[in-house]
Amino acid sequence: MASPVLPSSGVLSPLGLDAVRLAPGFWGDRATLNREVIIAHCQEWMEKEGWIGNFRGERPRRGREFSDSEIYKMLEAMAWADHPGLAELADTVAAAQEEDGYLNTRWSGDRYTDFEWGHELYCYGHLIQAGVARLRMHGEDRLTDVVRRAADHICGRFMDTTETCGHPVVEMALVELYRATGTERYLEMAQRFVERRGLPALGDITFGRAYFQDDLPVRRAEVFRGHAVRAVYLASGAVDVAVETGDTELLKAIEAQWERTIARRVHLTGGLGSRHSDEAFGDDYELPPDRAYAETCAGIGSIMLAHRLLLATGDVRYADLAERTMYNVLATSPALDGRSFFYSNPLQVRVPAAPPEGVNLGSSGGLRSPWFSVSCCPNNIARTLASLPAYVATSDAAGVQIHHYGTGEIRHGGLVLDVETRYPWSGEVTVRVVEGGDGRISLRVPPWATGATITHRAPGESATATGPGGDARVSREVEPGYAVVEGAWRTGDEIRLDLPMASRWTLPDRRIDALRGSAAVERGPLVYCAESVAGEPSLADVSVRPSTGHAGHAGHTERVVDGVVEIDVEVMLTEQGSDAWPYGSPRGAAPEPAVADVDADPQDGTAAAGTAKAVLRLVPYHRWGNRGPAAMRVWLPVSD
Amino acid sequence: MASPVLPSSGVLSPLGLDAVRLAPGFWGDRATLNREVIIAHCQEWMEKEGWIGNFRGERPRRGREFSDSEIYKMLEAMAWADHPGLAELADTVAAAQEEDGYLNTRWSGDRYTDFEWGHELYCYGHLIQAGVARLRMHGEDRLTDVVRRAADHICGRFMDTTETCGHPVVEMALVELYRATGTERYLEMAQRFVERRGLPALGDITFGRAYFQDDLPVRRAEVFRGHAVRAVYLASGAVDVAVETGDTELLKAIEAQWERTIARRVHLTGGLGSRHSDEAFGDDYELPPDRAYAETCAGIGSIMLAHRLLLATGDVRYADLAERTMYNVLATSPALDGRSFFYSNPLQVRVPAAPPEGVNLGSSGGLRSPWFSVSCCPNNIARTLASLPAYVATSDAAGVQIHHYGTGEIRHGGLVLDVETRYPWSGEVTVRVVEGGDGRISLRVPPWATGATITHRAPGESATATGPGGDARVSREVEPGYAVVEGAWRTGDEIRLDLPMASRWTLPDRRIDALRGSAAVERGPLVYCAESVAGEPSLADVSVRPSTGHAGHAGHTERVVDGVVEIDVEVMLTEQGSDAWPYGSPRGAAPEPAVADVDADPQDGTAAAGTAKAVLRLVPYHRWGNRGPAAMRVWLPVSD
Repeated sequence: MASPVLPSSGVLSPLGLDAVRLAPGFWGDRATLNREVIIAHCQEWMEKEGWIGNFRGERPRRGREFSDSEIYKMLEAMAWADHPGLAELADTVAAAQEEDGYLNTRWSGDRYTDFEWGHELYCYGHLIQAGVARLRMHGEDRLTDVVRRAADHICGRFMDTTETCGHPVVEMALVELYRATGTERYLEMAQRFVERRGLPALGDITFGRAYFQDDLPVRRAEVFRGHAVRAVYLASGAVDVAVETGDTELLKAIEAQWERTIARRVHLTGGLGSRHSDEAFGDDYELPPDRAYAETCAGIGSIMLAHRLLLATGDVRYADLAERTMYNVLATSPALDGRSFFYSNPLQVRVPAAPPEGVNLGSSGGLRSPWFSVSCCPNNIARTLASLPAYVATSDAAGVQIHHYGTGEIRHGGLVLDVETRYPWSGEVTVRVVEGGDGRISLRVPPWATGATITHRAPGESATATGPGGDARVSREVEPGYAVVEGAWRTGDEIRLDLPMASRWTLPDRRIDALRGSAAVERGPLVYCAESVAGEPSLADVSVRPSTGHAGHAGHTERVVDGVVEIDVEVMLTEQGSDAWPYGSPRGAAPEPAVADVDADPQDGTAAAGTAKAVLRLVPYHRWGNRGPAAMRVWLPVSD
Repeated sequence: MASPVLPSSGVLSPLGLDAVRLAPGFWGDRATLNREVIIAHCQEWMEKEGWIGNFRGERPRRGREFSDSEIYKMLEAMAWADHPGLAELADTVAAAQEEDGYLNTRWSGDRYTDFEWGHELYCYGHLIQAGVARLRMHGEDRLTDVVRRAADHICGRFMDTTETCGHPVVEMALVELYRATGTERYLEMAQRFVERRGLPALGDITFGRAYFQDDLPVRRAEVFRGHAVRAVYLASGAVDVAVETGDTELLKAIEAQWERTIARRVHLTGGLGSRHSDEAFGDDYELPPDRAYAETCAGIGSIMLAHRLLLATGDVRYADLAERTMYNVLATSPALDGRSFFYSNPLQVRVPAAPPEGVNLGSSGGLRSPWFSVSCCPNNIARTLASLPAYVATSDAAGVQIHHYGTGEIRHGGLVLDVETRYPWSGEVTVRVVEGGDGRISLRVPPWATGATITHRAPGESATATGPGGDARVSREVEPGYAVVEGAWRTGDEIRLDLPMASRWTLPDRRIDALRGSAAVERGPLVYCAESVAGEPSLADVSVRPSTGHAGHAGHTERVVDGVVEIDVEVMLTEQGSDAWPYGSPRGAAPEPAVADVDADPQDGTAAAGTAKAVLRLVPYHRWGNRGPAAMRVWLPVSD
């Protein structure tokens, strides 16, 4: 089957690219953009920057020490997308492989001298993932041969050492290669890499060992920590090892770490990471909107991890988080034209700013950049969009589960289902039976969709007794989780899921200091934001009253602009204070609560002079930054 | 005169170490600790780490590319402190100087090949400042000879180029050397370094050119930006150049930049810098308490800059900020025993944590570190504490101004004043005339000291008509600014300033997102904080009601513990919520304001079950972290 993850056991089994097809729609359009624009964009830039030339032996070598991995991520994207350019690029890569299987354009004679920063095993990991994709989509070829030789080299070199790589990924890659080939020592090697980390296996670095999760053995940790991409890649590998070896303790440990992380260390968008200095999770409840790092690749890694945990456990919460991250991180990074990307995905930008010209040497900028000196994100986007159908649906002995909604087709057993929806703009999802069969159909009801209903043929009716249109139909309210419909399905049967899509106010847990006194707007799986393009009030001046917007959503007006739902909210406008010392005493000695009532910035109830009402347009967060430099904020201050 | 800054013109003239003496007391004790412990501590570590050995030609060279500058900062401290070890260390340094005056243990044949990161001119800057200190405290010797040769080398090499250094400091150093020697080309060189920056003069770097203030010419900028230490060092040099060349436009530009910075980019402590990744100012109002960088050296640079601006303009606001920064940054960094230091001075620490063992490779840790791989802060503390008397008082044609209060002696003209005070614990400051004379005495009244009074001999009385104790005395309220007393002073005359010292609530400007809905406690010049040592409630659970604490300071109880004023405040305790998704909808559809009322964390007014009252002990911020690992917070959440 054509899927990036094919566990040999677990509560749910994935349906791969051969079983799920995405037609035009939110994700289908992005998959097309990926095939037609993003992959070519990545290839052009990696030629221009010399990263592909490195494999041809062009010198001086160009790019960072891990640039080989970017070519491999793109090769993986090409494999999933059946891209015609793959073979030639695979030949280029193959030519650089050494006799003993070693393959790296940065290191050679000095191989394996810097495990902390060398990224050699990290590069192999991505190479192997590309090879697995090729094997599953196409079968053996030169690329898969390169990959096997590299994997054999790794096992030979590292099976009996205590070494590992500063950046995890080789773990999950080796497990998947085991799954794809049946070669057991790949699993053994992966297991050893997972187990030896944290003993510790690496040297000390400026950021501390938690940076690469070498502070504690994986199974002893309580929360994800350190570099966010490293953390979720490692956890993904640990889940894979746990599933294949039947290591329940390890699986439970990752589940517990995930649960604590999601409660304390995740941004509203699903973005992970709060520190720029080391691209890391911060402490519990350290979730600044302006300095949210929320690296695109950490979001992708989180989707990968959630998918693995969903397969292993069947717990809907993993699909819920994956959806949130797909719509608000994965969909946010690429520009609408597919030619520039966000590396970091903050929830607030105060100063409208374009990124530096040319290659972005950092991750900064309030606009997307065409390329980065560390360009993991565009290639990671490419391979994820190319394999996205594999995340949509799963199966078990009883039937099929649909976790993510998009117009397209799902096949399982003899059953062929057509899905039609304008999700996430509309909450109406229609599943039409094209070819019938027996089995349970489960549709995920997201946690925000209270009052959802499902409508289908009455279960008492025989599958063949009445024709389409003549059925007795039942409609019932369904709780968040999975709406389950049993049936002997026949062609023409329809199941309709209605997810309530009215916009809603969202408030933060009081322990999140950086969000105190602010509120956000969500609608369906989408987080919304205000963007300071021409005509909008200055974002420094607005505040909201979420209480007025709650009951019946008073104060919210939805409008559809080019197929996108935008939301107008009523806001207060407060005049800017003066430029004085910005800390002051509460005004007056009376015992009224005078919290926002600072000397430097008078705005108490009596002085309503400085406050006026206005309307603020909110757009889906994933759309922001497509109209030029702008200020932006997801969390809006609450008026007193 | 023995002062680090001796401008040839300006509204106020400094009184140096020969005119101001600090006796035991808040700062006098720290000066003693510096002389007896801190300087020796720095010297021991720099021997141990090999940074001094580098000058002896020991190889391999050890330490970062700028480690020479640390020896120079310590030499400056030794010069101000008349330390007996100076001569030997100066000889060691002198031996490493090349024929043409070049001096750097990191670079030599490859000199001046990396202006962005090489730090060669930065090192010279600190060398020159040490030389100026030596010249003014002692006169010419081998160190001052080394310094002149180095300065001549710089002028020869750089007068007619477009180059400058990635880290400013040489600008103010050269101006001061001009002031100390009269050699005009040092001033000319400093002026050129100031003017050529931002044209631009340096290459592009990952952080962007604003990092080293090379994005704009100094006089065209509107606010301090980029690396905070670099920004305030450059501004200090620009003020020095402006003052010596009569460049009013340049001086006004720095004043405007300071004003905007202080209104938008300064932490309550006076600390500067909000970003760890590049040790930089963030955007306006980006002032996170937990990730406040507030580097010790940026605070020191801010004191240096404020002192220069005070001398140039006489504006009390510069002394006000200097005081805030002295008590809450300069006094915070060194441990009470003088053997460990904070590099970064955040306003909140969530997780009690010790720094890494041994040399701190970063700036992290909720406890002070004995040494850092970048150890600017301890040496900067040393040279600042050694020269602190020079910041205390100034003079003009009319008399003397006392800006900072500490027990000690001040001499100006024939006048000798004894100052006696327990400031900052008490607001009572007594200035006693030991040797009489004519002249105006001005005492700074800080902005928080509303209701301050000054008491002194009635101005109508003849200075010799009545004896001490028999005078008619007047007492009057004085506004923040300077309380001015004119007189013909005689021995035994007394002026008493009473600054109200009751603790007060402080609220942030509403534009500071990270502090919304929180309040701090200050008392006099001191910022207070809660520290989670044994017995205190968990800082994650507390909230305050600043309104109840305002009128008559209800709810605050002061107590003196070992001479330190601690403050008890009444707080609410809220039970921890569960570990669920930390974002939720407002509870209930009713239109009441339900802001902190999140599903995941029920705590609305009706459910007061989870809330209890308790007492929280606050300690001066500068004292925190002396009792072992602890959580800490300056800003306390306000209860709904």
